[in-house]
Amino acid sequence: MPMNLWLTLTTDFGLKDGTVGILKGVIWSICPQARIADISHTIRPQDILEAAFVLARATPYFPANTIHVFVVDPGVGTARRPMAARIGEAYYVGPDNGALTLLLERAEGAGQACEFVHLTRPAYWLPEVSRVFHGRDIFAPCAAHLARGVALSELGEPFSDPVRLPIPKAQPTRQGWLGQVLYVDWFGNLVVNLRSEHLTACLPDAVRVRIKGN
Amino acid sequence: MPMNLWLTLTTDFGLKDGTVGILKGVIWSICPQARIADISHTIRPQDILEAAFVLARATPYFPANTIHVFVVDPGVGTARRPMAARIGEAYYVGPDNGALTLLLERAEGAGQACEFVHLTRPAYWLPEVSRVFHGRDIFAPCAAHLARGVALSELGEPFSDPVRLPIPKAQPTRQGWLGQVLYVDWFGNLVVNLRSEHLTACLPDAVRVRIKGN
Amino acid sequence: MPMNLWLTLTTDFGLKDGTVGILKGVIWSICPQARIADISHTIRPQDILEAAFVLARATPYFPANTIHVFVVDPGVGTARRPMAARIGEAYYVGPDNGALTLLLERAEGAGQACEFVHLTRPAYWLPEVSRVFHGRDIFAPCAAHLARGVALSELGEPFSDPVRLPIPKAQPTRQGWLGQVLYVDWFGNLVVNLRSEHLTACLPDAVRVRIKGN
Repeated sequence: MPMNLWLTLTTDFGLKDGTVGILKGVIWSICPQARIADISHTIRPQDILEAAFVLARATPYFPANTIHVFVVDPGVGTARRPMAARIGEAYYVGPDNGALTLLLERAEGAGQACEFVHLTRPAYWLPEVSRVFHGRDIFAPCAAHLARGVALSELGEPFSDPVRLPIPKAQPTRQGWLGQVLYVDWFGNLVVNLRSEHLTACLPDAVRVRIKGN
Repeated sequence: MPMNLWLTLTTDFGLKDGTVGILKGVIWSICPQARIADISHTIRPQDILEAAFVLARATPYFPANTIHVFVVDPGVGTARRPMAARIGEAYYVGPDNGALTLLLERAEGAGQACEFVHLTRPAYWLPEVSRVFHGRDIFAPCAAHLARGVALSELGEPFSDPVRLPIPKAQPTRQGWLGQVLYVDWFGNLVVNLRSEHLTACLPDAVRVRIKGN
Repeated sequence: MPMNLWLTLTTDFGLKDGTVGILKGVIWSICPQARIADISHTIRPQDILEAAFVLARATPYFPANTIHVFVVDPGVGTARRPMAARIGEAYYVGPDNGALTLLLERAEGAGQACEFVHLTRPAYWLPEVSRVFHGRDIFAPCAAHLARGVALSELGEPFSDPVRLPIPKAQPTRQGWLGQVLYVDWFGNLVVNLRSEHLTACLPDAVRVRIKGN
């Protein structure tokens, strides 16, 4: 396995508490040469769909073999699996809660290979694991070991049924299509699940947009 | 041209969407050794004057040959030129919309050489260029190619008339000087276009400050 | 002294003004190989206790010899000492105002050695030192010189009485313990100065929490 030193972080930790810094300290303690980029730390708290959207939008622009750590983890402390995955040429480490759904749909559509590993080997974790902070104790350490060159398969047991989120799809109605807002960006732009083919289907009539009836 | 691996980013992208991460992914994909510092990503949306102020304040503290990417770009998709510039010993890559005005005034005052290049060579861009995201598709790639050692002049055609913003200047009045607030910082400090010589001109009388008549 | 290239930054500078970028530019200008992680830049303005809490929580996760710059500095421009410290295996550079109190208590409890140096050697500062921005002019440069391999003792005169903050302690009452909220985190969790031994002392009765009488 080629060593890769580029990592990214996507969390709902916010920026004020220094929690993101803790992840970087843990990663550098295991892999001092790691280069770490922040993707977002202001994912809406515990909003897995928003994490899925941000990961799917940003991570494809990173070099092959980049390791993407994601920690939006409302199920921490429950039975949800800690996981690492390879999707095409990228690695992902975080909770198995559906945050990779959009990336998996895209990879499957493109015929790319995927692998999933249940993180079960404490040798690659911090010595003490809390019930509430697997980002620090499991995900960051496993990502750093991947960066050092440890093989994905070394980190635990393979599995094949990652959790999938139900992603809302546009539905046809008598007047046209009913879509949902998936994401509201920093500029206030609405990202919706309507695509140009939905609009084309309405043409040549003018397109009219109704939001909550208006 | 000496290779330089230090880059900075100044945008109005905000921090939540992961858009800044996209720029870093694009840069690392072209120049894996790049070291990237954020200057600000919360420039007031589309506020070129604020970008000009922040760039002029922060970029002089970076090492010679640092490449500064700036993307506050209300004119994206219009005829405004994508540009790269050398101002003294620093490089700048972004839209030609006046965000470099303060830096240019300072460089000209100090007799420093400047060069401007209209980014016209798609060989240095991402393969597909959107109408709305030149930061990702043109500016970040061109900056990364500069970091790899491509010469500024390779990126496009030279030009000599970069857009300048009208920067408000303090005006003399019968009672003293009329200035404007250029910037309000994080602590609430007001940065105004009044300098010590304006105050000196008023001395030895006491200085009185009136804000909106108060 | 082993050279160390890992640094962190903890400030109340906020993210919009580019002030954090200035620190990075100053550090890279002196030590181009430095790797810099942000811990927090949204410490409540001038809140030294919050800085103490964030530093004590995050910095222990970084590799040995990491250099931690902290700039929450309400006393800048007064007689407060600029300082650098070694606490166990980590370095700290910032104002001597109590922000290291929790780290010092912990190190002393663990029998770790500490050293304190009053930063008095302008040879390690920027050429001009403002009255209001020692982060840029003194702390970042001294930290970068440490990163280049300059010995702590070279930076100034040793001293032994760093400022300590009074940290609120839980007090026994007739009904149990009276504690204080030390920190409110991003998720709204309250960090209080009550520990499990305080709760154990109340058991086997049920634990009841009263906040401001409720």
